[in-house]
Amino acid sequence: MAQVAIVMGSNSDLPVVKGAMEKLKKFGVDFEAHVISAHRTPYQAEEFAKSAKEKGVKVIIAAAGKAAHLGGVIAAYTTLPVIALPIQTSLMGGLDSLLSMVQMPAGIPVATVAVNGADNAGILAVQMLALSDGVLAEKLEQFKEDMAAEVMKKDQLLQDELKKF
Amino acid sequence: MAQVAIVMGSNSDLPVVKGAMEKLKKFGVDFEAHVISAHRTPYQAEEFAKSAKEKGVKVIIAAAGKAAHLGGVIAAYTTLPVIALPIQTSLMGGLDSLLSMVQMPAGIPVATVAVNGADNAGILAVQMLALSDGVLAEKLEQFKEDMAAEVMKKDQLLQDELKKF
Amino acid sequence: MAQVAIVMGSNSDLPVVKGAMEKLKKFGVDFEAHVISAHRTPYQAEEFAKSAKEKGVKVIIAAAGKAAHLGGVIAAYTTLPVIALPIQTSLMGGLDSLLSMVQMPAGIPVATVAVNGADNAGILAVQMLALSDGVLAEKLEQFKEDMAAEVMKKDQLLQDELKKF
Amino acid sequence: MAQVAIVMGSNSDLPVVKGAMEKLKKFGVDFEAHVISAHRTPYQAEEFAKSAKEKGVKVIIAAAGKAAHLGGVIAAYTTLPVIALPIQTSLMGGLDSLLSMVQMPAGIPVATVAVNGADNAGILAVQMLALSDGVLAEKLEQFKEDMAAEVMKKDQLLQDELKKF
Amino acid sequence: MAQVAIVMGSNSDLPVVKGAMEKLKKFGVDFEAHVISAHRTPYQAEEFAKSAKEKGVKVIIAAAGKAAHLGGVIAAYTTLPVIALPIQTSLMGGLDSLLSMVQMPAGIPVATVAVNGADNAGILAVQMLALSDGVLAEKLEQFKEDMAAEVMKKDQLLQDELKKF
Amino acid sequence: MAQVAIVMGSNSDLPVVKGAMEKLKKFGVDFEAHVISAHRTPYQAEEFAKSAKEKGVKVIIAAAGKAAHLGGVIAAYTTLPVIALPIQTSLMGGLDSLLSMVQMPAGIPVATVAVNGADNAGILAVQMLALSDGVLAEKLEQFKEDMAAEVMKKDQLLQDELKKF
Amino acid sequence: MAQVAIVMGSNSDLPVVKGAMEKLKKFGVDFEAHVISAHRTPYQAEEFAKSAKEKGVKVIIAAAGKAAHLGGVIAAYTTLPVIALPIQTSLMGGLDSLLSMVQMPAGIPVATVAVNGADNAGILAVQMLALSDGVLAEKLEQFKEDMAAEVMKKDQLLQDELKKF
Amino acid sequence: MAQVAIVMGSNSDLPVVKGAMEKLKKFGVDFEAHVISAHRTPYQAEEFAKSAKEKGVKVIIAAAGKAAHLGGVIAAYTTLPVIALPIQTSLMGGLDSLLSMVQMPAGIPVATVAVNGADNAGILAVQMLALSDGVLAEKLEQFKEDMAAEVMKKDQLLQDELKKF
Repeated sequence: MAQVAIVMGSNSDLPVVKGAMEKLKKFGVDFEAHVISAHRTPYQAEEFAKSAKEKGVKVIIAAAGKAAHLGGVIAAYTTLPVIALPIQTSLMGGLDSLLSMVQMPAGIPVATVAVNGADNAGILAVQMLALSDGVLAEKLEQFKEDMAAEVMKKDQLLQDELKKF
Repeated sequence: MAQVAIVMGSNSDLPVVKGAMEKLKKFGVDFEAHVISAHRTPYQAEEFAKSAKEKGVKVIIAAAGKAAHLGGVIAAYTTLPVIALPIQTSLMGGLDSLLSMVQMPAGIPVATVAVNGADNAGILAVQMLALSDGVLAEKLEQFKEDMAAEVMKKDQLLQDELKKF
Repeated sequence: MAQVAIVMGSNSDLPVVKGAMEKLKKFGVDFEAHVISAHRTPYQAEEFAKSAKEKGVKVIIAAAGKAAHLGGVIAAYTTLPVIALPIQTSLMGGLDSLLSMVQMPAGIPVATVAVNGADNAGILAVQMLALSDGVLAEKLEQFKEDMAAEVMKKDQLLQDELKKF
Repeated sequence: MAQVAIVMGSNSDLPVVKGAMEKLKKFGVDFEAHVISAHRTPYQAEEFAKSAKEKGVKVIIAAAGKAAHLGGVIAAYTTLPVIALPIQTSLMGGLDSLLSMVQMPAGIPVATVAVNGADNAGILAVQMLALSDGVLAEKLEQFKEDMAAEVMKKDQLLQDELKKF
Repeated sequence: MAQVAIVMGSNSDLPVVKGAMEKLKKFGVDFEAHVISAHRTPYQAEEFAKSAKEKGVKVIIAAAGKAAHLGGVIAAYTTLPVIALPIQTSLMGGLDSLLSMVQMPAGIPVATVAVNGADNAGILAVQMLALSDGVLAEKLEQFKEDMAAEVMKKDQLLQDELKKF
Repeated sequence: MAQVAIVMGSNSDLPVVKGAMEKLKKFGVDFEAHVISAHRTPYQAEEFAKSAKEKGVKVIIAAAGKAAHLGGVIAAYTTLPVIALPIQTSLMGGLDSLLSMVQMPAGIPVATVAVNGADNAGILAVQMLALSDGVLAEKLEQFKEDMAAEVMKKDQLLQDELKKF
Repeated sequence: MAQVAIVMGSNSDLPVVKGAMEKLKKFGVDFEAHVISAHRTPYQAEEFAKSAKEKGVKVIIAAAGKAAHLGGVIAAYTTLPVIALPIQTSLMGGLDSLLSMVQMPAGIPVATVAVNGADNAGILAVQMLALSDGVLAEKLEQFKEDMAAEVMKKDQLLQDELKKF
Repeated sequence: MAQVAIVMGSNSDLPVVKGAMEKLKKFGVDFEAHVISAHRTPYQAEEFAKSAKEKGVKVIIAAAGKAAHLGGVIAAYTTLPVIALPIQTSLMGGLDSLLSMVQMPAGIPVATVAVNGADNAGILAVQMLALSDGVLAEKLEQFKEDMAAEVMKKDQLLQDELKKF
């Protein structure tokens, strides 16, 4: 049963959104994903948002670009935490997507990550789930250590490269 | 019966939105107005948008600030033209409101006017109605002439002021 | 007889503007199109704008980039609704075009759509015409349903893709 | 015992941050709050972040302005979810604070809310806690209903005001 | 007979525009000034621009804010040099005015000065006239020396103030 | 003898700056051009600016990118009109170049054209020279007519293309 | 003898620049200060920059706003490190000043601090001097500790305030 | 023994950062370089920053992109001067990196150079070292002369090219 539900405004967002899916998979978190447009399929957006909690979904990730209303529209219909993932655009690199998502009015928050920051959308969802899931919490600690180790390995590679400099 | 319906995300938008009301009144166009929040009262937004056409509404003006989704959310539920009026904010003077409104994805247009451009939201609504209302069309011509006359009067005032310079 | 007139500042805008033409054609709305520059052919712009209404044009779409004055200049000479289509540029992705169009002073509105949002310029024109054309109004309803169906089809494709994930 | 810990870069952020405190209090969620500077008290920041989880803290809210590193620095030392609250500044209204917080690199997410969006920082924390707290979850549903009722009350007030128009 | 003509979109621009007038007066350059709106009085704008050269005007200064088309519209109808003076607004401090003026397409230049940079609009006009007016050219040299002397006097004042520091 | 002097901060600006050269050549205006860096060759910049007037130069075009000080530095040493041509960069498409040039303090104007607007830099120089050169003035009138004719020819091409649509 | 020289484009910058003076005074670093305009007193700027090193100046702080060329112009004439202090303006809160200073071309660096970040300009100068001054280096360590203590004191005040919450 | 230490948030920054290394090598300044992430390896960042001074490092260059906290985090743990090098990104060309670095709060300065301005980061480090190293100081004078000569050579090349124009 999916604990995380990912919605994206368009199939064209998939190459970016995959980063979130991969992170969820890596942590062993079941997820479902849907193409839902806040503007073109408002009834589906409403239906999805209203039923998510009952279906057992705990966290929703909403990815969209330009006038990116998807996160806000979903959040309007649910009390589950909604993570907003702004998609890069040609207008100032996605400032339109970012502002349309992050500047939510008081009362209806969305948790916004970086433009195209799909990895972090996935990890943030895991962090929320880990609040009541000790196994996930431990995996997060391990993940943090692995990331550090990876950076240190890259530092080692740099040292080799510097010798040739 | 209201031909234009104005929705605003919050009462605090009223001082700005009044500009649109005054223009509609000046042209003798009946309007209704509502406080509806895309995020806090999504059902009301949906209900309003879906029923507007049947009630005889022809044009909708949606005013909102920050992550200003109201225009897009209304447009998702109706095929009536929606005029989006972005409200000034403290973030770059309202660039967040403007981009959240104007950057709508293909398929669901909103007709965006200037930040705090309430007068123009009203006049644009009148222009749309005038397409099938000869009296309104004539009033628009007269309004254009009056505006020009007013500018010319201001120019006259400037000439007087220049003499003292 | 053309109900919609499209003007663009340069031939180079045509690949973008075509999106509006295709939408108008899809809805069976007759249109004419012209290359008119607010700055290089001001007399043609004036002549076009002043005569549009008499020729039977009901809505004008003006596409331009950079210091995109075309929409405002046309609107100065007519009381018909003018839809402004800002063209993408290299300066912040077209923020110059957008602001030059949308920030019109009180009295002379233009209805601005997204940067490069040609589809929506076309649909918005149809929405205005549909206010007094029941057949167009029905086509718009159908179009909305078709869009929703298309999104749902894309969602189905996503479900297939997810299985392989 | 505090479930939510709020850190702010400076006392001067308190008038804004209070919005989060009030929301937490309203929902009956215990919180602690500290003035910690990512740059002036890095050891305190580290100590705070590393010990938060063991102390029973579940969610951290970090408020800061300008080069607002506090959220990221805290997130570097913990796997708890960190909510970033950008504080308004004189540079483009806080775009510096917003970008410094939201544009986190892959691996270390922070959940960013609107510039000065303290209410939403508090509500988002509650939403995360409610994932494993049925009472909070119900309070959130009630809160949503109350908000909707309040908007509708404001709409009623608008109707009265319109009569005088 | 006026050698410089100043046009402004609105009387409300006068407090800023006065800076240009004062500079012209200081240099003994005759000027005329008009309130002309590119959008509200397009015929006056055209008439003014077309007749300016014959009347003996040599340089035009056009001041406007928001979607500031005035400079471009005037330039469309004349081959005289047009100085564009963008007026400060609430949208990013006048970036809308600036971009609407400076980003003119190839073929129709306007010479843009700083937002609210009225003094410089006046001085730039004098510089252009001085190309064929030796007396003005000498006055400009003197003005430059006076400015330098004034800065040096201010430096002296600073030295006094520093002693008390 | 050169009436216009073009300076550019780097050879890499030449492909853009050529637009100005071509326009000057087209109008038969003699020009000289130099690579001068405000920062790397400040003495050359000073020397160039101070001697330009005596050499018979009447207008200076300064092209530079990023922290584009060249226009301002040249203007500091001469009373000739200086046209500033901001070069496109990777930071917001050249907003850095534009602001560094156009936002000059009171007393020392530069006449700024669009980012990469080299054609207009050339034409603006011609317009200034034409104030005291009747032949140039007539050529400018002809140039304006030719431009209009060219746009009309493009409109004709569009009509042909539309038939196939 | 002054080890640090502060230059500012105008007396009006003094209220901001004082922050740097106070920091230098606090660390016992002798400084001199001058009003020098890159554009209005270019010879003084050159003279100052060229002679600074011989006079014993080690670090220069240059404060300016809008098209803030002062830092770059000074740096062009000296090999001493130049700290650039951008002054807040009405255009996006000083983004013009910031970009005009920080975006220096390769070869001529300036060390830019925050908009209105005068304190940091002073401290950065001290840090540079401390590289060869053990006493200053120790004072910097103490200063860092004092700052941390001050933040902790503020945290204590917050705890008191929270009790009343 | 390294006098300059370069840290970068990721190996992917190396192609840019190399510009700083080459400059340091050219001036004969020993440097070390590390991949250290403020967020992924906070302990390494702390350890590096705290021990740098004792190891003999005098200046630190920190390169990072997006929410570029590396400079600030390093500066929090040392009193050595820290040069911040913002890396270009897809969001407005790196405005996020720039603002995250330059807008540091009072008390903890970083010396920010241009986006991708690696050469200048290196030269600025040399300028700081040269304050107490006469040989380096002379090399800087020579470097300045060489740069000027190079620009003049480029000017010569331009003169050749112009003949063919």
